[in-house]
Amino acid sequence: MEGKGQAFSDKYAADISSIKAAQDRISSYVHKTPVLSSETLNSLSGRKLYFKCECFQKGGAFKFRGACNAVFSLTDDQAAKGVVTHSSGNHAAALSLAAKLRGIPAHIVIPKNAPKCKVENVIRYDGQVIWSEATLQSREEVAAKVLQDTGAVLIHPYNDGRIISGQGTISLELLEQIPQIDTIIVPISGGGLISGVALAAKSINPAVRVLAAEPKGADDAAQSKKAGTIVTLPETKTIADGLRAFLGSHTWPVVRDLVDDIIVVDDKEIIEAMRLCYEILKVAVEPSGAIGLAAILSESFRSNPNWKDCKNVGIIISGGNVDLDVMFESLNERV
Amino acid sequence: MEGKGQAFSDKYAADISSIKAAQDRISSYVHKTPVLSSETLNSLSGRKLYFKCECFQKGGAFKFRGACNAVFSLTDDQAAKGVVTHSSGNHAAALSLAAKLRGIPAHIVIPKNAPKCKVENVIRYDGQVIWSEATLQSREEVAAKVLQDTGAVLIHPYNDGRIISGQGTISLELLEQIPQIDTIIVPISGGGLISGVALAAKSINPAVRVLAAEPKGADDAAQSKKAGTIVTLPETKTIADGLRAFLGSHTWPVVRDLVDDIIVVDDKEIIEAMRLCYEILKVAVEPSGAIGLAAILSESFRSNPNWKDCKNVGIIISGGNVDLDVMFESLNERV
Repeated sequence: MEGKGQAFSDKYAADISSIKAAQDRISSYVHKTPVLSSETLNSLSGRKLYFKCECFQKGGAFKFRGACNAVFSLTDDQAAKGVVTHSSGNHAAALSLAAKLRGIPAHIVIPKNAPKCKVENVIRYDGQVIWSEATLQSREEVAAKVLQDTGAVLIHPYNDGRIISGQGTISLELLEQIPQIDTIIVPISGGGLISGVALAAKSINPAVRVLAAEPKGADDAAQSKKAGTIVTLPETKTIADGLRAFLGSHTWPVVRDLVDDIIVVDDKEIIEAMRLCYEILKVAVEPSGAIGLAAILSESFRSNPNWKDCKNVGIIISGGNVDLDVMFESLNERV
Repeated sequence: MEGKGQAFSDKYAADISSIKAAQDRISSYVHKTPVLSSETLNSLSGRKLYFKCECFQKGGAFKFRGACNAVFSLTDDQAAKGVVTHSSGNHAAALSLAAKLRGIPAHIVIPKNAPKCKVENVIRYDGQVIWSEATLQSREEVAAKVLQDTGAVLIHPYNDGRIISGQGTISLELLEQIPQIDTIIVPISGGGLISGVALAAKSINPAVRVLAAEPKGADDAAQSKKAGTIVTLPETKTIADGLRAFLGSHTWPVVRDLVDDIIVVDDKEIIEAMRLCYEILKVAVEPSGAIGLAAILSESFRSNPNWKDCKNVGIIISGGNVDLDVMFESLNERV
């Protein structure tokens, strides 16, 4: 298969070799997540859908793949003082768990507005929480101070070749589990997940289409593709709290060159897709995790002639960390 | 393996042969459901837990296995006039789907108080809904009339060897997926699921323990085991709407002889386990589906010296059909 593939090593922060090396490095730590399917959702979309359930990954999201690869790529000397990150949540939990498995400390800068369940995940995995304000500036400043105080290594949530390589292992698994896949739909935020997925998938089979799904209230990646350069937004507003980051220097070139299109959906479409995930697939997803299904059911995707031949579609359910207090308060009232 | 096993064919309505025949009959129709695990839940329980996720089965519950086996066991002549059942929901949807796959009508008598999502599943699979009152008597009377009017075949939800054999295919899969399992915990209601699971598991390996989990507000099976005869209750009260049926003539002998114990839990424990399924496993379960986890976390299980050697425990998540309107109304208010 590699003979047919393309090598991207000169141009990008990761390539099929670094992704295969990541798979060797992390395979004894990560879950090989199952792929689910539903005739009901196939009928609804008019295609065969294959849901790669990264919500069942350790820590409840795909982020553990990249974090695990980054942490176990460190030399013993580098690792000794621990790792640091600032993150809206899933990367934070993932890094905490990876650090715990290696037996080193994880210093986690978390904005005060992060969802409670994501903070609980960090604490569950013995991450050391340091609070910041909600702004990116405050998060970076607090992280810089922690770096100085501890001498630990900063592990960026997505703009890092080791992270991209770890996330790319999803494609290796998915294309082995469902070889007939012709399209993969991936949530896009900072671009680490889709960069890894695209680099691996297009190396294995250049004909596989890789499409991003992005919330309308944080559509910086769609705007960047149109502008031909990284666009950032003064503010973002979406229920998909995991998809508010902007592209980075290592992810933008991959998104620019290898992502075939970006499908933008609104929050109502995300919630409707989330409901289908719970009610039909029986999978507890977070809003970000449902956006791939929202994209394939959206009018803009259905009416685009470029995608009418997408028949066997892999949809990455990126994570399942969501506060369900309302639902359980209601249930508890019944007993 | 069969050489080591026990044959139960003289005593019970199903045996390892009928269960293997069921597997051959239904394997092209059913999902081979994945087994999930979680280090967090392992720590919490002090054991290794393997969740057999029948909520991902077609129709959202294990019931499709038995219904599919029953429908495809019929001769063409028997099948021609369709099938009938009265059911609280999951069997109804399962029978509708199985009948649809065989191209025959399914007449479904449903009590007016059945959960909305379960009724929707019947309609989704083209089942023909006939309403009855909530009492078992009304359901049976309406079903008898439908039988007379249509000449269709009655397929009981659990008190039927074909149904028991279909449900038993879960054990064949689970013990192949996780051979080291020493204990299986199974929700108990009418006893079809646990009869099939116990007959298959104990035939393959007589040392495997089979334990039932039952809600306190419908603990007829636990009372039956104590009394040594079938006990029914004047009324049942539990959030686990799928677990209110009583044992039947074909399931009681298996429960009496092969089920090692019945663990009774209250509704608060069920809801707490349900929360863990959503928040940690990321699986959308119905209350009945979470009761196995509730049982293994219960004080009565933990403190029982008989079960301290249960180290590798299979837990059957029986279904995921639950109304989530409250949760989605709350989400929709945010956009």
